[in-house]
Amino acid sequence: MSRQAPRARARDLGVVVGSLPTGPHNAITDVPGVRVGHTTVDDGGDLHTGVTAVVPGQLGPDRWALPAAVYAGNGYGKLVGSTQVDELGVLESPVVLTATLSVFRAADAVLTWLMGRRPDGVSFNPLVGETNDAHLSDIRRRPVTEAHVLAAIAGATAEPPAQGCVGAGTGTTALGYKAGIGTASRTVPWAGREVTVGALTQSNFGGVLTVRGVPMPVEELIPAADRTEPAGNSCMIVVATDAPLDARQLGRLARRAIFAMARVGASYSNGSGDYAIAFSTAEPGRPLMPDAEITPVFAAVLDAVEEALLDSLFTATTTTGVGGRTSHAVPHEAVVRRLAAAGVLPLPA
Amino acid sequence: MSRQAPRARARDLGVVVGSLPTGPHNAITDVPGVRVGHTTVDDGGDLHTGVTAVVPGQLGPDRWALPAAVYAGNGYGKLVGSTQVDELGVLESPVVLTATLSVFRAADAVLTWLMGRRPDGVSFNPLVGETNDAHLSDIRRRPVTEAHVLAAIAGATAEPPAQGCVGAGTGTTALGYKAGIGTASRTVPWAGREVTVGALTQSNFGGVLTVRGVPMPVEELIPAADRTEPAGNSCMIVVATDAPLDARQLGRLARRAIFAMARVGASYSNGSGDYAIAFSTAEPGRPLMPDAEITPVFAAVLDAVEEALLDSLFTATTTTGVGGRTSHAVPHEAVVRRLAAAGVLPLPA
Amino acid sequence: MSRQAPRARARDLGVVVGSLPTGPHNAITDVPGVRVGHTTVDDGGDLHTGVTAVVPGQLGPDRWALPAAVYAGNGYGKLVGSTQVDELGVLESPVVLTATLSVFRAADAVLTWLMGRRPDGVSFNPLVGETNDAHLSDIRRRPVTEAHVLAAIAGATAEPPAQGCVGAGTGTTALGYKAGIGTASRTVPWAGREVTVGALTQSNFGGVLTVRGVPMPVEELIPAADRTEPAGNSCMIVVATDAPLDARQLGRLARRAIFAMARVGASYSNGSGDYAIAFSTAEPGRPLMPDAEITPVFAAVLDAVEEALLDSLFTATTTTGVGGRTSHAVPHEAVVRRLAAAGVLPLPA
Amino acid sequence: MSRQAPRARARDLGVVVGSLPTGPHNAITDVPGVRVGHTTVDDGGDLHTGVTAVVPGQLGPDRWALPAAVYAGNGYGKLVGSTQVDELGVLESPVVLTATLSVFRAADAVLTWLMGRRPDGVSFNPLVGETNDAHLSDIRRRPVTEAHVLAAIAGATAEPPAQGCVGAGTGTTALGYKAGIGTASRTVPWAGREVTVGALTQSNFGGVLTVRGVPMPVEELIPAADRTEPAGNSCMIVVATDAPLDARQLGRLARRAIFAMARVGASYSNGSGDYAIAFSTAEPGRPLMPDAEITPVFAAVLDAVEEALLDSLFTATTTTGVGGRTSHAVPHEAVVRRLAAAGVLPLPA
Repeated sequence: MSRQAPRARARDLGVVVGSLPTGPHNAITDVPGVRVGHTTVDDGGDLHTGVTAVVPGQLGPDRWALPAAVYAGNGYGKLVGSTQVDELGVLESPVVLTATLSVFRAADAVLTWLMGRRPDGVSFNPLVGETNDAHLSDIRRRPVTEAHVLAAIAGATAEPPAQGCVGAGTGTTALGYKAGIGTASRTVPWAGREVTVGALTQSNFGGVLTVRGVPMPVEELIPAADRTEPAGNSCMIVVATDAPLDARQLGRLARRAIFAMARVGASYSNGSGDYAIAFSTAEPGRPLMPDAEITPVFAAVLDAVEEALLDSLFTATTTTGVGGRTSHAVPHEAVVRRLAAAGVLPLPA
Repeated sequence: MSRQAPRARARDLGVVVGSLPTGPHNAITDVPGVRVGHTTVDDGGDLHTGVTAVVPGQLGPDRWALPAAVYAGNGYGKLVGSTQVDELGVLESPVVLTATLSVFRAADAVLTWLMGRRPDGVSFNPLVGETNDAHLSDIRRRPVTEAHVLAAIAGATAEPPAQGCVGAGTGTTALGYKAGIGTASRTVPWAGREVTVGALTQSNFGGVLTVRGVPMPVEELIPAADRTEPAGNSCMIVVATDAPLDARQLGRLARRAIFAMARVGASYSNGSGDYAIAFSTAEPGRPLMPDAEITPVFAAVLDAVEEALLDSLFTATTTTGVGGRTSHAVPHEAVVRRLAAAGVLPLPA
Repeated sequence: MSRQAPRARARDLGVVVGSLPTGPHNAITDVPGVRVGHTTVDDGGDLHTGVTAVVPGQLGPDRWALPAAVYAGNGYGKLVGSTQVDELGVLESPVVLTATLSVFRAADAVLTWLMGRRPDGVSFNPLVGETNDAHLSDIRRRPVTEAHVLAAIAGATAEPPAQGCVGAGTGTTALGYKAGIGTASRTVPWAGREVTVGALTQSNFGGVLTVRGVPMPVEELIPAADRTEPAGNSCMIVVATDAPLDARQLGRLARRAIFAMARVGASYSNGSGDYAIAFSTAEPGRPLMPDAEITPVFAAVLDAVEEALLDSLFTATTTTGVGGRTSHAVPHEAVVRRLAAAGVLPLPA
Repeated sequence: MSRQAPRARARDLGVVVGSLPTGPHNAITDVPGVRVGHTTVDDGGDLHTGVTAVVPGQLGPDRWALPAAVYAGNGYGKLVGSTQVDELGVLESPVVLTATLSVFRAADAVLTWLMGRRPDGVSFNPLVGETNDAHLSDIRRRPVTEAHVLAAIAGATAEPPAQGCVGAGTGTTALGYKAGIGTASRTVPWAGREVTVGALTQSNFGGVLTVRGVPMPVEELIPAADRTEPAGNSCMIVVATDAPLDARQLGRLARRAIFAMARVGASYSNGSGDYAIAFSTAEPGRPLMPDAEITPVFAAVLDAVEEALLDSLFTATTTTGVGGRTSHAVPHEAVVRRLAAAGVLPLPA
């Protein structure tokens, strides 16, 4: 089905998070080698779901493990692959995101992909996350197939990824509005060069949208809004960086990715499976960044995740799904007006 | 295919672990309500695998959550479901065990089972463990189907479960010998009644078999033994109890289940995904056992797991599998002879 | 030495966090039985430090353990007592806060206190936290004595505790301003009654002060401000509740206490030991609050901690300490003006 | 007071654990740079306690942090310093062991030592462990002073450390017998050279002594033995290695140190605070040992800890302490006789 022209990102409207510079496209793909692919499963009716794959190009015949960590801010979720990441400190597959009841089929599909590339392998650890898009999609049909997953991985490119209602974000909602996939990046000077931190989020959680500190309750901006979505669902956050960090340090980044959710008004409710996955693409054997120099990278994580979360809402479009439920897009104009009134943005002309 | 008559258990040979009494059948099914079912997938050729399901009868329309905990002694494995158990402290599905590359299909099958019982549900947390039986089975065929998993769950009974080369233990090896499924139980007096601790293991790990302290290196007992199996594979241990314990306390039990592996000679090698899952079937709302009174339950766990591990070897039968590799059963007679020589058993007549 | 009249709290200025009602005094002592005591060690010169004790009155001859949990948001700190809380899920002493290099002497003093009350005891687990007040106080003198600690505990009352530059907050700074101790509370209806959540913070961390979403960079509000304090130091947060929660659930509260720091602009920097301790005073044996009903309690934690953090700054007073360094109090008027400009508060008359 | 001539170690009696070679002295000090010092506090009456310090010579002006990890097998203990080790993955002080109620004074003494060496420092993280020697020593007197701790550190040498009733082991008991300090080491070939693993234990825990699989219940070997000591107390294990391992990997070693306790008959009871601390002295910046090559190091840990635990009993001497309670030394002759009967040792001539 045809997709609408992309909506403006937060930054296009003048909303700037923090003072660090972004990478060239303000996207996780600004981290060299990182690719993103989506398969959108949207029949215009009861199905609004899909798959998003974050594929580190560094994974391949020469190297099937990148330093990585997972943090479960609220472990009410079905993330596949976390104990082995905890134990070995490595990511050994693309990171794939999808809908809750499709997560095991997606993991099995990642197995297929890995087995194809490693014909002698008998043990693989797919890392697959999920959030629950049942509010808009008939999740019990488990509509995501192996082909969908393989297509998302195969289609992954280094281009700035599509955002909003695509891939694993097709049917998600957050903070009262239609949400989806968002991404952002930041750069930080270190050791005479720039290191990049990129974030990608699958947003699907409760709370009150807060843009640069200004609350945007859906009840006020969209009076007729349907607020029957579950108080909590989940948020999957992927953080990639080319900074030379080990698994322990990446765990510190992953925690801050979850902390950043507070900045956009997350309620961290009981039912919200809030997970962050962080990995480093740095070449092995290089000296690690000392912890004493890591605070700017933490700041980059906090800012990139905050902006990716905003973009996951700003770029999403109003969607009607299963049960006739409609989730409304964030109304840009009203948001800008409020930001101007709060002095965050200049008054629109 | 026809299965051989069951071999003697450790206790049948006079090998007694510890001084606590067993339950009526020295099996995890001694814990009231706990049922076990196996589906064996064994074509007599390259496939030696299957499914074992531990099904707490308490799970059902009245109660879809039992207090539970997972401990990853060595998290090199693909256990499905652990983060939600960590967060909520509950088991919400049968515990299913299978082969590594089949774990996601098995988890998806458990979803099917849960969806059938909870028609309005949109979120479920299957707990599915695995070990790698590639030494004897063509694991890359992913031969375990949804039907196999559903059959194991549906066929679960309160009878003492078959042990050895059945279900998820069909193709596993441990400590140099053919291994499989083992089970045992212990009872402990508490608060004027008996509480029961049951263990079930899927044994598939490295080391030197040690029976009640007496080493039984396969090289000495079976000179021609093939020792090409991987140094480590994994061990899945399920502990059930009707003692009223909460998730934190069950986590303490789970750790001791892993500690017990040392008693049979485990090497805890890098590649061995050693996990324990502990759950309580006690009715909710009853007063918990105080930690100050828990040490005998710890002893029961240590002893039941040790004996279940021994039984998983003692009851297994010599198996030739993929690649023509043969894994030899523990030779009972030689073991008894050694135990007698060490003074552990009386000299055989 | 004489202390200044208390400064206005955030709420006195019209700053209200969230929509939940506060307890009677908007303080951690609103949780029945919880008492707070301070010993301020301030010689008007190089020493600006002290002790704050949170004393649950429920601890005593009838009951030396309350359900509790610790969460290390960033474990760069010397918190005493955490592993036993993790293992047993209980608090067994008053919670005492002090300065980094005094933490062991304070823990030893808590031992003295416990030994005095439990003459047969040979094992005790004091829970003592610390942050680093070296920016304003000559920390290497380790000026906190056993007498100071015992006085803080003995002097603990159920009155609303003094805030700002008292006790363990005498010498702390946060977000560029002088900080100290803050407290707040919220109530939540549950099971036909009100449960209370109280928070107390020892604020000493980096970032940009953000009041209800409006940034208040010290550089803009106090042009001459000294910003030489370390980027990170630490934040200790104590959460008390009478909601019947077990240790696992209290761990979920503790995590949200740390998440709340993001709302006031915390940078979660490398060197900031950010810890939360949560305990429940509920009578043992009562039915626990189900996790499915816990989200409002999470909201209460997020709001109470946010407001306690604000109060820890709003109530603190400009302080000059060791090395002649001055840390400036938050200028209330300027803050109110900014909040009014942002539409958060009505324009001051 | 005069100390008896050292008793034979396990190996002197022919008891050999595993097949790996030991270092030159079968001691933790075989790891280059690692020194051990003891202060014994034994008044021949009610006091039988002390301090043991493991001092990595690598810690000093050039480097105040070594990769390290802590594992709490059973966190019923008052270990000081663990959260910062968890967060930063480094050891920043000597490892000091002492008696439970003296642990905070000992930590404060380590502060003194560190402050003396780092005159500008305002933040230090002493790592101090403890076990409870109240069975033989009047622990409530808190007899360990700063001078005792400083003497143990200052007196640390690279010589093979005294074992048995010295330092922090002066008053400890384990498995029914008098215990104390034990040490052992192993070497493993890696990357064309030998890496060394050393262990030191402060043994103070319950169970049934098991020597190379042969149970040695105190009731059988010493009929009149006093078994009134607490079922559990604790075990502190320090593992040092020059293998280039990071904190995550050292955490894997630490877990195996606790697993090894099962080999000597530990009961892992509720009240036993069983902790392991592992650190690496390898020069920073060297390539790490890959996890795929780590299994022999795990074996070295298991064997060295088992032997150190045995030595902590074999070298201890019968002690009468507070309350007139006597803890008996392991009777070597009886042990050897049993081992011979079990075929573990040749029959004594």
